Amino acid sequence: MAEEAPTHIRADALRQFCAETFVALGIETADAEITAEVLVAADLRGVDSHGVARLKRYVDGIRDGMMRPDAKPRVVYETAATATIDADAGLGQPPSHWAMQMAMEKAERLGAGFVAVRNSNHYGIAGYYAMMALEKDMIGISTTNADVLVVPTFGRNSMFGTNPIAVAAPALKERPFVLDMATSVVPRGKLEVYDRLGKPLPEGWATDETGVGTLDAARVLKNFTTRAGGGILPLGGEGELHSGHKGYGLALLVDILSAVLPGAAYADLVYPKAAEGKPLPSKIGHFFGALRIDGFRPVDEFKADMDELITRIKNAPKAAGAERIYIHGEKEFEEQDERQAQGIPLHPKVLRALRSIGEELGIPFPA
Amino acid sequence: MAEEAPTHIRADALRQFCAETFVALGIETADAEITAEVLVAADLRGVDSHGVARLKRYVDGIRDGMMRPDAKPRVVYETAATATIDADAGLGQPPSHWAMQMAMEKAERLGAGFVAVRNSNHYGIAGYYAMMALEKDMIGISTTNADVLVVPTFGRNSMFGTNPIAVAAPALKERPFVLDMATSVVPRGKLEVYDRLGKPLPEGWATDETGVGTLDAARVLKNFTTRAGGGILPLGGEGELHSGHKGYGLALLVDILSAVLPGAAYADLVYPKAAEGKPLPSKIGHFFGALRIDGFRPVDEFKADMDELITRIKNAPKAAGAERIYIHGEKEFEEQDERQAQGIPLHPKVLRALRSIGEELGIPFPA
Repeated sequence: MAEEAPTHIRADALRQFCAETFVALGIETADAEITAEVLVAADLRGVDSHGVARLKRYVDGIRDGMMRPDAKPRVVYETAATATIDADAGLGQPPSHWAMQMAMEKAERLGAGFVAVRNSNHYGIAGYYAMMALEKDMIGISTTNADVLVVPTFGRNSMFGTNPIAVAAPALKERPFVLDMATSVVPRGKLEVYDRLGKPLPEGWATDETGVGTLDAARVLKNFTTRAGGGILPLGGEGELHSGHKGYGLALLVDILSAVLPGAAYADLVYPKAAEGKPLPSKIGHFFGALRIDGFRPVDEFKADMDELITRIKNAPKAAGAERIYIHGEKEFEEQDERQAQGIPLHPKVLRALRSIGEELGIPFPA
Repeated sequence: MAEEAPTHIRADALRQFCAETFVALGIETADAEITAEVLVAADLRGVDSHGVARLKRYVDGIRDGMMRPDAKPRVVYETAATATIDADAGLGQPPSHWAMQMAMEKAERLGAGFVAVRNSNHYGIAGYYAMMALEKDMIGISTTNADVLVVPTFGRNSMFGTNPIAVAAPALKERPFVLDMATSVVPRGKLEVYDRLGKPLPEGWATDETGVGTLDAARVLKNFTTRAGGGILPLGGEGELHSGHKGYGLALLVDILSAVLPGAAYADLVYPKAAEGKPLPSKIGHFFGALRIDGFRPVDEFKADMDELITRIKNAPKAAGAERIYIHGEKEFEEQDERQAQGIPLHPKVLRALRSIGEELGIPFPA
C-alpha cells in the first residue's frame, strides 16, 4: 500500500486557520486562539492523533451541540491552593488553560496549586498544560479522563479512557523532562495501524468480546463500534502476570483525580447520548497541578541536578543492540524542532478534510 | 520442597517487640514506635517483604552507621504549601511520618500541602503515608526512590529502584482506593521465588548482563550481587512494544519528585559505600502530598461518587474465566482483617531472626 506524500504547512499558518475556524463557529477569539494553539502544539510534537487531524471532530462537536460555543466556564469551588472550574460543556482547551494558569498563580503565592475541571470536553494533549509550568520554574501536572476504550484487569468491558498522565519538570541546559503517557498499553491509533497492515497484534495489547486476549485488531475495533465488549489493555497487559493491575490502577487514579474530584462523569458514564442518538456534552473532567520548585530547594540547584540526572541516564551503557537511551519528551522536542523549521506534514486525507472545512466556512486554507 | 508452618504472632505484640528493639538501639521512644507501626502495617497488609522480616536489616543498619540513631531531622526549606525536611541520615519512617503530617496540616489550612524529604533511609511501605490522609478526608500521595534494581528502556544497567507510587482516596461505605505500586514490572522478591522454584521467568520481567531479556532468575540475581549489569524491567517490559518506556518514565518521575526536588541522591548514586566497603547512609529521598477533598467539592458528594465508581467497576461483567474485579487496596484490606484477628504468620526463618535479635538485646519475644 503506497503512502501518498504529505504536504507541509507552517505551524503558524495552521494555527491561524484553526483559530479562524473556531471563530466562524461562534467561539470567542481568545478561546479560539487557545484551542488552536493546543491543537497545533500536538502536531508540532508529532502527536498527530491529537492535532489538526481532529479539527473536523471539533467542528462537528460544536455543530452537534456536544461542545457549546457560548459556554461560560466559572469557578464553582475554591480554597487558597485549590479550585474547581465548571467548563459549562464548552471546548475543553480554554477552561483547561485557565485552570492551569490558576494552579500556577496559586503555586506562585503558596508553593502549590491544584485546579480540577468538570463538565468539559476533549482538551487535546495532556502534556501541553503540564509544560505551561516550565517557564515559571514549576513542576506541572495534568490528567484527564476520556472516552471508554480500556478494560480493567479481569473485566470484560472497557470502563476507562486511555486516561493520560502528564508531568513536566525543567532542566538547565538539558531539555525538560516531559512525561505524557496514556495509562493503556497503546492508544487506539496503534490498533488501527495494525488493522490497516493486516498484522496480528502483539500479545497483551487488547481483549476480545469475552474479555480474553486477542491478536485480531479488526475484531477489537469492530467491538468498539458495536459495544460488544473487550478493549485495549491497561499498561502491563492482561491479568496480573506483567502487572496489568498497575496500569488499571493508574487509569482509575486518573478517573478519581480528573472526574470524581471535580464532580465530572467517570468510568463508562462519559460521552452520554440523548435518546434520539444525538451526542451530548461528554461531561469529562481534568486535573491540573503546579509545584514551585523553590518551595523545596533553590531552582538553580534543582536544575543542575536535573541536568546531571538526565546526562547520567543518557550516557549510561546501552543494552546490546540499542543505540540510545531517551529521556521523556526528547523525541517530541526533536520532532518539534524539525516541524517548526520544515512545516507540519499533513496526510492527504487530513489536508482534504481541512480544505473542505475552509471552503465551507469561507476561510482561506494556507498554501 | 515442604514449607515449614508459620507461627502466628499478634500485631500489637510484634509492634511492641520492634519498638523495644529500636529503643534498645538508641532510638527515641516516639520514633521507635512510629517505625514499628509502619513495619507491622506492612505485615498486616500482607506485604511481608517490607515488614518485620526486614527488622534485622534495620538493626544492622543502625549498628553499621547507615541509619544514625541520634538523627535530628529538621525543616530546611518551607513555603505556605511546601517544605523540605533533611532526615539527618536516620531511620526513614520518623521524618516521613512528620513530613506527611506537615503536608496534611498545610492542606488543612490551604487545600494542598507537599513535603519532600532528603538524606533519608528506607521508609517502609509507601502506602502507609498515603493512607494517613484518609481519616482527614484528604487524598494522600507518597513516593520514594530506592536501591537500584531497575533498568531504563534501552539501558544495560539498573539505574533506578523499584520507585513506588502510592495514592489513597477515601470512599463512603466502600473501602478506600489505595494504589501502592512499584513502577517496575515486579519486585525483586518475585525473582527470588522463581529462582527457588527453578522456574523460568515470564518474558518481559528482567534483562541479563548485556541488557537483553532473560528468563534466568538466578542469573539476574547473581548479576545484582556482582553489579554485572541488567536488572528488573520497568512496568511495560522490554523496549517500547508494550510501552516499557512508560514504566521507565514513572520511575524517573519518582526520582525527580523524591530525590531531585528535595536534593537527595538519585538514580544509581543512592546507597553509596565508603572506600573500606562500609555502608553509608543511603541518602534516598521521599515525596509526600495531601489534597483536601473539600478544596474541590463537598466531601459527601465525593465519597458517594467514589462508592458508585467502585461498585460500578466491581459489578461490571467479568472476563471469561475471571471471577472478580478488584479495586486497589482491597486484597490488602481483606488480608489485614484476617491478620488482625488471627495474628501475623511469621515464616520460621523470620521467627528465628527475630528471636535472635530479642535474645541479644534482652527483649522478650512474644509467645
